[in-house]
Amino acid sequence: MPSSLRERAIGCRDAAAVVAGLDTAAKRRLLHRMADALAADAALVIAANRRDMDAAVANATSGAMLDRLRLDEGRVDAIVGAIREVATLPDPVGVITRRETRPNGIVVERERIPLGVIAMIYEARPNVTADAAALCLMAGNAVILRGGSDAMHSNVAIATALCRALREEGVPESALTLLDDPRRETMVELLQLTDIVDLAIPRGGEGLIRFVAEHARVPVIKHYKGVCHLYVDVDADQDLALRLLMDGKTTRPGVCNALETMLVHRDVAASFLPRAIARLRERGVEVRGDDGVRAVVADVATASEDDYAAEFLDLIIAVRVVDDVEQAIAHIRRYGSDHTEVIATRDEATAERFVHSLRSAVVMVNASSRFSDGGELGLGTEIGISTTRLHAYGPMGAESLTVERFVVRGEGQVRHPA
Amino acid sequence: MPSSLRERAIGCRDAAAVVAGLDTAAKRRLLHRMADALAADAALVIAANRRDMDAAVANATSGAMLDRLRLDEGRVDAIVGAIREVATLPDPVGVITRRETRPNGIVVERERIPLGVIAMIYEARPNVTADAAALCLMAGNAVILRGGSDAMHSNVAIATALCRALREEGVPESALTLLDDPRRETMVELLQLTDIVDLAIPRGGEGLIRFVAEHARVPVIKHYKGVCHLYVDVDADQDLALRLLMDGKTTRPGVCNALETMLVHRDVAASFLPRAIARLRERGVEVRGDDGVRAVVADVATASEDDYAAEFLDLIIAVRVVDDVEQAIAHIRRYGSDHTEVIATRDEATAERFVHSLRSAVVMVNASSRFSDGGELGLGTEIGISTTRLHAYGPMGAESLTVERFVVRGEGQVRHPA
Repeated sequence: MPSSLRERAIGCRDAAAVVAGLDTAAKRRLLHRMADALAADAALVIAANRRDMDAAVANATSGAMLDRLRLDEGRVDAIVGAIREVATLPDPVGVITRRETRPNGIVVERERIPLGVIAMIYEARPNVTADAAALCLMAGNAVILRGGSDAMHSNVAIATALCRALREEGVPESALTLLDDPRRETMVELLQLTDIVDLAIPRGGEGLIRFVAEHARVPVIKHYKGVCHLYVDVDADQDLALRLLMDGKTTRPGVCNALETMLVHRDVAASFLPRAIARLRERGVEVRGDDGVRAVVADVATASEDDYAAEFLDLIIAVRVVDDVEQAIAHIRRYGSDHTEVIATRDEATAERFVHSLRSAVVMVNASSRFSDGGELGLGTEIGISTTRLHAYGPMGAESLTVERFVVRGEGQVRHPA
Repeated sequence: MPSSLRERAIGCRDAAAVVAGLDTAAKRRLLHRMADALAADAALVIAANRRDMDAAVANATSGAMLDRLRLDEGRVDAIVGAIREVATLPDPVGVITRRETRPNGIVVERERIPLGVIAMIYEARPNVTADAAALCLMAGNAVILRGGSDAMHSNVAIATALCRALREEGVPESALTLLDDPRRETMVELLQLTDIVDLAIPRGGEGLIRFVAEHARVPVIKHYKGVCHLYVDVDADQDLALRLLMDGKTTRPGVCNALETMLVHRDVAASFLPRAIARLRERGVEVRGDDGVRAVVADVATASEDDYAAEFLDLIIAVRVVDDVEQAIAHIRRYGSDHTEVIATRDEATAERFVHSLRSAVVMVNASSRFSDGGELGLGTEIGISTTRLHAYGPMGAESLTVERFVVRGEGQVRHPA
């Protein structure tokens, strides 16, 4: 008889105490054992994935979706490699971030401890099953995984291999609990286990994230869309700005740190836009602009209000001419998603004005939006990019799966000496 | 015509951008101006409080509650002083916590920025109106205050003074928005303004906190009860343990960092318990114990299961005899509230075992639980004590009202050079 969701979640919570007690060497050994197990099961995982793929094809799933779902030997190898990479990360647990001796002699330390039980809610990519498990465990947490039903056979095969590794290392396999019940009610129940789940992280389309935010009673860190902006200032190095534009828009348009909107200072519109738009079009990018843009390049389609709020995730860009950095800031405040914004300028004061007037998770000066990524920013790997301005904001690495608490050591000090 | 809650909240959000842009000197000036305004209005505030007190007396409100509600000249002076103290705190906004140059030359900084709009939900104490406003503003945030209806006249009088100071300093007064609509539906509406409110902090009884947690769609940091434990180890200095016991239980039993349960190692029960219980009784503390306690001091009442989970907030203590530190840890894991736990021991290994097996927000070795307080732990002042293991855990100071984001500076670096 399968146990209830609540019972399974309690099992995961009990395992969390075991995982929290593992030292760095034990966690690294565990992760390498997980990588070994997955490598050994590669054929089984690919066979399971074949069943998911067949069902997806039968359901007339889109090509992009099929590509996200598909596993082959190379992709399984990549997942195995990613687990081994997480094993090399610095262990955030037990790190003393601050130490202060108070006037009464007590020593106050801030120490990083694991969050506890993390619920990952995700969609089609089966690699998330392994990536999230590895990162959560390395940060001393247990994890409940709730993947999409489209990838269920793949996810079960991956989790089976990983759980074998847990057993072999003497860690309760409930530390990695994959939910194989695809019903939405079950997800809602999971999201309301306030005495068990310490954090839910939804990763996927906006629909999934809104569903999670709406139904969760446990804390949620959301990863909403990235409507990333590039502002080309009057004082920009135009060659540099063009490089940032092409890197941000064309190298991988389907990811959240790709550019969606470009704002161009009015005084450089005539010199910059014709070149920029020609280069974009060479690469197959559709340009939609306002009247300011169309005054310079007449055959640009008119951008709608919706275009400025859109995360196209495609070879489309919205462009607008602005009077100055203030108008660029006002535009981003109105249409932005708090993800990543870029300014191209040689003027330091303008750059500082841009940085300090915006409260996006990542603000770049003369660097590509595509660096808005845990690996690129030095976190090693990431579990997602938070657009929730609490706990973690921007790319989240292992450290974001811990919290600081207080450890106080004294010699009998009391607050009110007798 | 009064504007809608949503309109008022949007006004607060717009003001948040202004507050976020204030430099340290401007915020300090603003807080001193707020203190001045409140001092000038002391008589008005006390008169307004008199109306709240009269209504409370007419409603047969309890003495403890009346005491929390009451303002006199001394208490208004104390609130004024507390605002001036917040003005002396280090400004957390703009602090660069880390800086790293990546191999490609981009410089990645982590910078503290304000959260944005904080909703404080609280009960009878009118001083929270000023305390929370001062701390939120010092950390660069705007604040929506929703106090208890019992203190409404007092809160309005305080907020009126504070908002005058905002105006005088050229800050939109909507940066401090006091909701004077006492209906629960309004609170629910506030807690669901996900596009405006960045964080809700409930402070008050368990009923209020549960209500907020149940209805909120915005992030919440909860301040639940403190069921704080003292474990007296076999290797404890018994005089020291007795000092911690008396300080923790008797100096202010009504606060969340007071002791509620004492666990005593079996091998020292006979030597420690008779002295300890005698001293507790001298101070009027009622002792409830298990069979192990009653075997040593026969006239102790039997503790129920509920007693071990209780936050008495009163001169009552639950006591239990345990076999060793492991059993103490197991007890605390089962009955604790993740707030504050204390061990008295001279054995370092036992102390470390206790610290690292518990994931409470504050763990003390040979120091009183009463130090679990923002001021005592060096945060200056606190907005509450979080028992949510996310973002902030334990006493929350000004820094906990900010979040780290990424600022990246480059010289035209791109992820995929052409």
